[in-house]
Amino acid sequence: MSKQRTGKERPVGRRPGDSAQTKAAILTAAREAFSVDGFDRATIRSIATTAKVDPALVMHYFKSKQNLFAQAHELPFSPSELFAGVLELPSGLRAAELTRTYLSMLAFGPAPGLSLIRAAATNEDAARMMREFLSDALLTHASTLAPGSNGQRRLALVGAHLIGVAFARQILGLDVLKEADIDQLVNEISPAIQTYLDI
Amino acid sequence: MSKQRTGKERPVGRRPGDSAQTKAAILTAAREAFSVDGFDRATIRSIATTAKVDPALVMHYFKSKQNLFAQAHELPFSPSELFAGVLELPSGLRAAELTRTYLSMLAFGPAPGLSLIRAAATNEDAARMMREFLSDALLTHASTLAPGSNGQRRLALVGAHLIGVAFARQILGLDVLKEADIDQLVNEISPAIQTYLDI
Repeated sequence: MSKQRTGKERPVGRRPGDSAQTKAAILTAAREAFSVDGFDRATIRSIATTAKVDPALVMHYFKSKQNLFAQAHELPFSPSELFAGVLELPSGLRAAELTRTYLSMLAFGPAPGLSLIRAAATNEDAARMMREFLSDALLTHASTLAPGSNGQRRLALVGAHLIGVAFARQILGLDVLKEADIDQLVNEISPAIQTYLDI
Repeated sequence: MSKQRTGKERPVGRRPGDSAQTKAAILTAAREAFSVDGFDRATIRSIATTAKVDPALVMHYFKSKQNLFAQAHELPFSPSELFAGVLELPSGLRAAELTRTYLSMLAFGPAPGLSLIRAAATNEDAARMMREFLSDALLTHASTLAPGSNGQRRLALVGAHLIGVAFARQILGLDVLKEADIDQLVNEISPAIQTYLDI
């Protein structure tokens, strides 16, 4: 047996499974950094240092700080991924797609994003982290999705509405919203969202 | 001096100031009852018993359980009062009035209602209390303000949107929303609210 094991020995270093372990270490470091420093002040470099990896490897795995934040908080996708899919559609269909995707993710699934909403409601550090994350997303995406001088604010109101739906349906648990299926809600909410995307 | 005091003696019982003290006792009893029993199970009778007054006096001072709840939680007005003012207007002006009144109350003033939102986010008893209070208001007002088979849900979505604006502006503190004045926000939000009031 010892001979067999000897035969399978490999140089110390990267092994199968290292990638998953490294990603997990980066996500743990990222959660800690975002929680303590907020989204703006946390850096890829400091997260990499804590996780004992090269910053280039963090970017290789996670592509952007937005995406790293999203994955660290178990959001199914980052704003960039959400908006990229929405922008492929003609403008008249974007509100419905945005509403459906958000509701599918936040209000009808296991709803990982709700823990962020709950934390932000009572903890200023969590509120700052979420505020900075969303502000960064608004700055990045308003020019394409909601152009115009008040585009960032209109996109923020889209977010406010959808967060409010998640709050009323999942946290307050209003029966009239819980009883509705996703198609009903998309049909009813999309025209309101559309008012913010039209200019 | 003792002669003067004797001259001013009155029968033991109701004195000037009793009214304010009695109201305060009722509000304290109401907060406790709503918090422990929720909105539905708390009764005017049990609140009156705790406050050591007649139930008729509670109704005399506060008119309805909705209104008692609103005053116990320092909301500037109850849904009935808000909706009564809105219903006096032609339908095309109602969304703007509702939006302006809510924002004035919740998001631009000392925002007493925010403490309810914060509590509901992390405490199931508080969430249930707010859920039952809002459900009662939806049941009462949907037929006039948002008629139709899905009127309660559309009115719930109005509430969800406005709560979301309060959350994003006051709790998250998004700069693009904080920098906007109330006229800008009313102009931008009203068309979205209007989609829920039209049928």
